[in-house]
Amino acid sequence: MKAVLVYSGGLDSTVLLYRMLGEGHVVLALSVDYGQRHRRELDCARAIALECGARHEVADLSALARLLPGNSLTDRAVAVPHGPYTEATMKSTIVPNRNMILLSVAAAWAIAERADCVAYAAHGGDHAVYPDCREGFARALDGAIRLADWHSVSLHRPFVGLEKSDLVRMGAEWRVPFERTWSCYEGGAHHCGRCGTCVERREAFLRANVSDPTVYAPDAPSPALEQNADHGKESPC
Amino acid sequence: MKAVLVYSGGLDSTVLLYRMLGEGHVVLALSVDYGQRHRRELDCARAIALECGARHEVADLSALARLLPGNSLTDRAVAVPHGPYTEATMKSTIVPNRNMILLSVAAAWAIAERADCVAYAAHGGDHAVYPDCREGFARALDGAIRLADWHSVSLHRPFVGLEKSDLVRMGAEWRVPFERTWSCYEGGAHHCGRCGTCVERREAFLRANVSDPTVYAPDAPSPALEQNADHGKESPC
Repeated sequence: MKAVLVYSGGLDSTVLLYRMLGEGHVVLALSVDYGQRHRRELDCARAIALECGARHEVADLSALARLLPGNSLTDRAVAVPHGPYTEATMKSTIVPNRNMILLSVAAAWAIAERADCVAYAAHGGDHAVYPDCREGFARALDGAIRLADWHSVSLHRPFVGLEKSDLVRMGAEWRVPFERTWSCYEGGAHHCGRCGTCVERREAFLRANVSDPTVYAPDAPSPALEQNADHGKESPC
Repeated sequence: MKAVLVYSGGLDSTVLLYRMLGEGHVVLALSVDYGQRHRRELDCARAIALECGARHEVADLSALARLLPGNSLTDRAVAVPHGPYTEATMKSTIVPNRNMILLSVAAAWAIAERADCVAYAAHGGDHAVYPDCREGFARALDGAIRLADWHSVSLHRPFVGLEKSDLVRMGAEWRVPFERTWSCYEGGAHHCGRCGTCVERREAFLRANVSDPTVYAPDAPSPALEQNADHGKESPC
């Protein structure tokens, strides 16, 4: 299979990158600069893709941030929420129609490269407050993408039905360098350990019973006890 | 109604702009710089929207041109086809998944602005060689856009079922300044009169029996006899 992978440099999409490469697929990794408030994710994406030998491109859509203010991911006037997510704080992280924009650009590249599909790491832990993470949305968009060109491309979402802790377990099997992936909404030297996505990342390692190699900021809350899990498959990188 | 209008500065979308403003709708005009080989359309769009008092934004997606080479609209290495379209020459003008990219960005802005819909000037004269002009594609994408946010936005395509000559007739009624719109794929001082879209523009005026005020290049083929049509409604601008 030849796939364009929507690749953020975060934990979820890096697990998918390693799994697809490990299974022998050709992966074109696409990161999208949508004007996110820091570049850490993009830097991580570039470095990991390079090490894996996967072709990597960054689509610069940063000019869109001006059109889409009012969310904490692209608007520096809006604070990044700390602590476990609530519906209200999570809503501040919604970039309008972000998934359709990312996936339509990925589909364009897939059509241009005659790839079979656009892969992305949507999973069961994606919160219902994000309307464009809903199953109905993904199915409708898949239908549109299949009709977008004579060379038909589909959406590939192998992690639907899995939780983030399942991805951590899978990533450990594929020897994903978790410590080099970036989840934190803040752009500090280390993961802050406080924002909603850091909290979820830590919880996922705990639930998966996999040691969390992430370096957190010195003032992050103390991590709970973690245990090592078995490591199995050979890393593709 | 409050609408984000996908606004190229060309004939079709300018007719829709005038009609929607004339009918009293609030129109946010969105042009997309997708790396097209010249800026004439964008300049026309900006000037016409300004004169109409419609808010106008240009979404700069020009970085995508590098990802999507091999077509004459974004790749200067590919020649613009001249003469009436054939399937082969038309295919050289296909930008992969262009419509989904444009419409997903327009939908994002519509969601951010709490608009009711995304309007665009797709019409019956759009050629079947463009896969993303097909009715099935538009319906599927409409379904996805409606699910993309809790604030539901739909696609508004009032010109489906009309021919380009119908739009010329309608534009004449709304006193559209046709001479200020830009269709030509080339970026010369005047419309070249030779490329596929110029040929179709001229034909539409002829069929509509509306005088064509477009200034064509001195070496353009001689236009056929044109006649004036009645002008009716008051221009909204």
